[in-house]
Amino acid sequence: MIPHDTHLRIGSLLFEGLDQIDLTGPFEVLSQIPNSTYQVYARTTEPVRDIHGLRLTADAVLADAPRLDVLHVPGGFGQEALMEDEEVLDWIRAQAGGATSVFSVCTGALLCGAAGLLVGRRATTHWSAFHLLPYFGAIPVDERVVVDGSWVFAGGVTAGIDGALRLAAELRGVEVAQGIQLAMQYAPEPPFDSGTPRTAPAAVLDRARRTVEDITARREKTARKVAERLGVEVPVA
Amino acid sequence: MIPHDTHLRIGSLLFEGLDQIDLTGPFEVLSQIPNSTYQVYARTTEPVRDIHGLRLTADAVLADAPRLDVLHVPGGFGQEALMEDEEVLDWIRAQAGGATSVFSVCTGALLCGAAGLLVGRRATTHWSAFHLLPYFGAIPVDERVVVDGSWVFAGGVTAGIDGALRLAAELRGVEVAQGIQLAMQYAPEPPFDSGTPRTAPAAVLDRARRTVEDITARREKTARKVAERLGVEVPVA
Repeated sequence: MIPHDTHLRIGSLLFEGLDQIDLTGPFEVLSQIPNSTYQVYARTTEPVRDIHGLRLTADAVLADAPRLDVLHVPGGFGQEALMEDEEVLDWIRAQAGGATSVFSVCTGALLCGAAGLLVGRRATTHWSAFHLLPYFGAIPVDERVVVDGSWVFAGGVTAGIDGALRLAAELRGVEVAQGIQLAMQYAPEPPFDSGTPRTAPAAVLDRARRTVEDITARREKTARKVAERLGVEVPVA
Repeated sequence: MIPHDTHLRIGSLLFEGLDQIDLTGPFEVLSQIPNSTYQVYARTTEPVRDIHGLRLTADAVLADAPRLDVLHVPGGFGQEALMEDEEVLDWIRAQAGGATSVFSVCTGALLCGAAGLLVGRRATTHWSAFHLLPYFGAIPVDERVVVDGSWVFAGGVTAGIDGALRLAAELRGVEVAQGIQLAMQYAPEPPFDSGTPRTAPAAVLDRARRTVEDITARREKTARKVAERLGVEVPVA
C-alpha cells in the first residue's frame, strides 16, 4: 500500500484500434483513487478511434508523459500494429521500469511481451491470445486477474474492471477500493453465462473463434518473431 | 427481435460531466451488434470531458443525428446541468418517440424524466438517485436492469453493461448477445462485495453517501421543479 499522502500519477497508453473498454473500465476505477492524477497518453492528441469506432483523445503525447507511478497498457486488435513500434515499446519499457505498478489488460500483455517485459512473469491475457504468452517467455496463468509482484494482469476486456479494483486495493487499501466499487454500483448480473470459452455454448464459441481466426494467426506470426528476438525457445504447437 | 437484415442505427447522447462508463460500457456491447451503426451525439464535436476527466468526442452534433432505432441516454453528475436544457430534452423526446428501443443508464433516467418520458413507467437508476424516480412520475423498481415495454433501464454506472446485453438479446436474439459477452470476456469476478448499498460495509456506505450529499440535494431540488412542471404529485419525503 502507498501512503495516502503520496500523490499517484496514473497513465494509460492509448492507440488506434484499441478495445476501448480495456482503457475505460480501468479508468473508471483508478481515476477515483484519492490523491491521484490519471492521464491518457498517445502518439497524438488528435482523437483516435477504438476498434468499434469510439473516439478517445489523449491528454498528452508519449514524450510529454512524466514518470508514472502506475502504467496501464490496454489491448485490442490495434495492438498488433505496435508490436515492432520501437517508440511505443521504448515508452512502455521506460515507464514500466520507473513505475510502482504495471497493469496489463487483455492483449496489452502482448505489447508488454514485445517490450521484453514478460520473461519469467506469471501472466494472463484475452482467451483468444492466451496460448501465445509462452512466446514472450511468460508463464500463462488461466485466471481472470493475475498478480505477479508489482504487475497486475487482467484477462480479456472487461477483466480490466476486476483487475483495477484489485490494483486500487493494493495501492490504497481495501476500503478505498470498496468505496469505488459502490460508487460505480459494480454488482454485476450478466444475463447469460457466456463470458468464457468454458461456459459459452459450443456454437457461440465456434463463431467467436472464427471471428478472431485471422488476427490470431497474425498475432502468432508476430509472437514467433518476438520469441526469436528475445531468445525465447518457441513452444511446440 | 428485429430481423437480422434490418440495419439498426444506435446512438448515444454525450455531454460534459457524464460518467464515461455509462456510455462506454453499453458502447462495448451494442457496437458489436451485427448490421448496425453506432454513433455518438453531443452539442459539439470537440472533445468533452467525463466527470473524472476522460475526453470523448462525438461523431456529430445533435441536430445532425438521423432518426435512431436505439437511443441510449447515459448519466453522471453532469446530467444535472441539462435538466432544463430544452435543446437536449427536445432531442431526447424526439429520438425516443421514433426509436424502437430507449436505453437509460444510471442517472440518464433523470434526463429522460425531465423530458417527461417516465410518467407511469417502471424504471431504475443509480442507488443514490433511486428515491427521486417518483418525482418524474416513474414507478421505482429496485432491480439492476428493468425492462418496461420498449424501454430498458440500467441501474448505476456498470449496470449499463448488463442492461446492454439484455438489450442486445432483445434486438438480435440470445446467441448474438452471448457472442458479444464471450468476445468481451464478461465473466465478472468482483474482488469485493461492495457494489450496492445493501452489501457495502457501513463505513464505506457512509462515506459514499457523504460524497454524493451535495449533488443529491441539487438533484432533489431540480426533481421537485420537474414534478411541478409535469403535474406529478410530489411524494412526501
